[in-house]
Amino acid sequence: MATAHQIPALDVPMKRVAAEIDRLLDQLIPLPDDSSRRLYEAMRYAAMSGGKRMRPLLVIASGGLFGVPVEQALRAGAAVECLHVQSLIHDDLPCMDDDDLRRGRPTLHCAYDEATAVLAGDALLALAFEILAAPETHPSPAVRAELTLDLARAAGAAGMAGGQMLDLCASEAALDLDGVTRLQRLKTGALIGWCVEAGAVMGGASAEERTHLRGYAQCLGLAFQIADDLLDAGGDEAVVGKRLGKDEAAGKRSFVTLLGVERARRQADLLAEQAVEHLHPFGDRAAILAAVARFAVARDH
Amino acid sequence: MATAHQIPALDVPMKRVAAEIDRLLDQLIPLPDDSSRRLYEAMRYAAMSGGKRMRPLLVIASGGLFGVPVEQALRAGAAVECLHVQSLIHDDLPCMDDDDLRRGRPTLHCAYDEATAVLAGDALLALAFEILAAPETHPSPAVRAELTLDLARAAGAAGMAGGQMLDLCASEAALDLDGVTRLQRLKTGALIGWCVEAGAVMGGASAEERTHLRGYAQCLGLAFQIADDLLDAGGDEAVVGKRLGKDEAAGKRSFVTLLGVERARRQADLLAEQAVEHLHPFGDRAAILAAVARFAVARDH
Repeated sequence: MATAHQIPALDVPMKRVAAEIDRLLDQLIPLPDDSSRRLYEAMRYAAMSGGKRMRPLLVIASGGLFGVPVEQALRAGAAVECLHVQSLIHDDLPCMDDDDLRRGRPTLHCAYDEATAVLAGDALLALAFEILAAPETHPSPAVRAELTLDLARAAGAAGMAGGQMLDLCASEAALDLDGVTRLQRLKTGALIGWCVEAGAVMGGASAEERTHLRGYAQCLGLAFQIADDLLDAGGDEAVVGKRLGKDEAAGKRSFVTLLGVERARRQADLLAEQAVEHLHPFGDRAAILAAVARFAVARDH
Repeated sequence: MATAHQIPALDVPMKRVAAEIDRLLDQLIPLPDDSSRRLYEAMRYAAMSGGKRMRPLLVIASGGLFGVPVEQALRAGAAVECLHVQSLIHDDLPCMDDDDLRRGRPTLHCAYDEATAVLAGDALLALAFEILAAPETHPSPAVRAELTLDLARAAGAAGMAGGQMLDLCASEAALDLDGVTRLQRLKTGALIGWCVEAGAVMGGASAEERTHLRGYAQCLGLAFQIADDLLDAGGDEAVVGKRLGKDEAAGKRSFVTLLGVERARRQADLLAEQAVEHLHPFGDRAAILAAVARFAVARDH
């Protein structure tokens, strides 16, 4: 296992993007000086609590291939991060995964209360679309409408929310490898796919370029999830920052319970290599995207 | 009190819009034949359970002033209805208002479970933006992006979600009339305002026309909410289809607890008349919008 420090190409960009996303979210979720304050505080608590910011990095790295200005890509990255954080807040609720630890701190409903957590999630979901649809994100309304349409699909019943629903039923459903793969494609793959695609949409990439990037994103999404399952099975809670061992305790099928640790790790590495191969047509310009794929399977958090 | 039948201008349009919205939601939330089925079933249970469909009617009536094709206005209406239903689902949760009855049936978390209710709400929120951003809603991407941006603002922390947060704190906050007015402007007014504005945006209305419609929507939103408070205080649970008497039981300030029944009713009637006056420049073409304002304060459900 490794941290971003051990993947040198990623160290600086990852830190820079994380700092920029924090700066942007600080602007986008300002603290009002009135009775609405509690909701904004809760949104900030969840959205500005660190995190790898891997999704914004993907948008920026993908946009970089096509000359998308960083300020624009950062806004799209902030939007997808709002959506990602919303899914974490709602998934952590007592009626869902009932988690009390996230990014090394109490989950939002523990730090505040359940009602505030539900509403902060809803407000972050709306904020994601508010950011995307605003003229500052891209001068072309057609691009903004496409980004919005694609993100809404990736977030909804045919994407992230649908995947979480399958996940909740997974303990009973005794999924096979195809079932787990489908679940994860929806739950985490759809949003990762959007990130990589967003850079291409914003930069006016060709259909062929988008096909290559889609192949990369599919392999990356699965590799990332298998690595997550490996962390759940054998990671260090203090480093990962969330409760581990939950899949096994809940009797859930995961890549690790189905394949075993060794085969799961080999599969993740293989998928990361396949992801990198899809980047071949972009040459060295895709170095950061390649580094993200290697980081996805080497990370310890 | 009166039903739509007693406001003849509204009887036919309201029924027609309700039927069309049901037809459209049936298409937009198709039942898949796989393990995702449960989430879609839950979305349909909540979204296709009747309801007045007043918000879609507002979009269509406002769009009608500017020649917006009904099929386009219906899609925008379906989008705002998805968002409205999402807010009802989440507001009904045990951690929020803890309601077991909605539109005369068990609330979603009672009919299914809490986790499904949270996710169905999230998926409906995403679906609202998916509908709006799709080319079928309007040929101009600039219009679609503007509709999306405005709806996201109306839904988020500075709109509906923020209003619900204030509402949750209202029992402790001992709000005065200004406080209750502000709360309701966010919680119900923002979305009603969007509906009226959406028709104008889709039809390319002038700035002056939009100002008139904004005045109408502000009066309508407050009138509608006072009427809601009056129903909560003195309506018939079997007709209204949800639990009543909750404001008083929770010690919440409402227009009725602050003004008393008689003054609240006079205030609602006055606001409805003011709403109608804002429609003066549109003449008879605004007959349905005027009828909605009269219905808002005369309804028994």
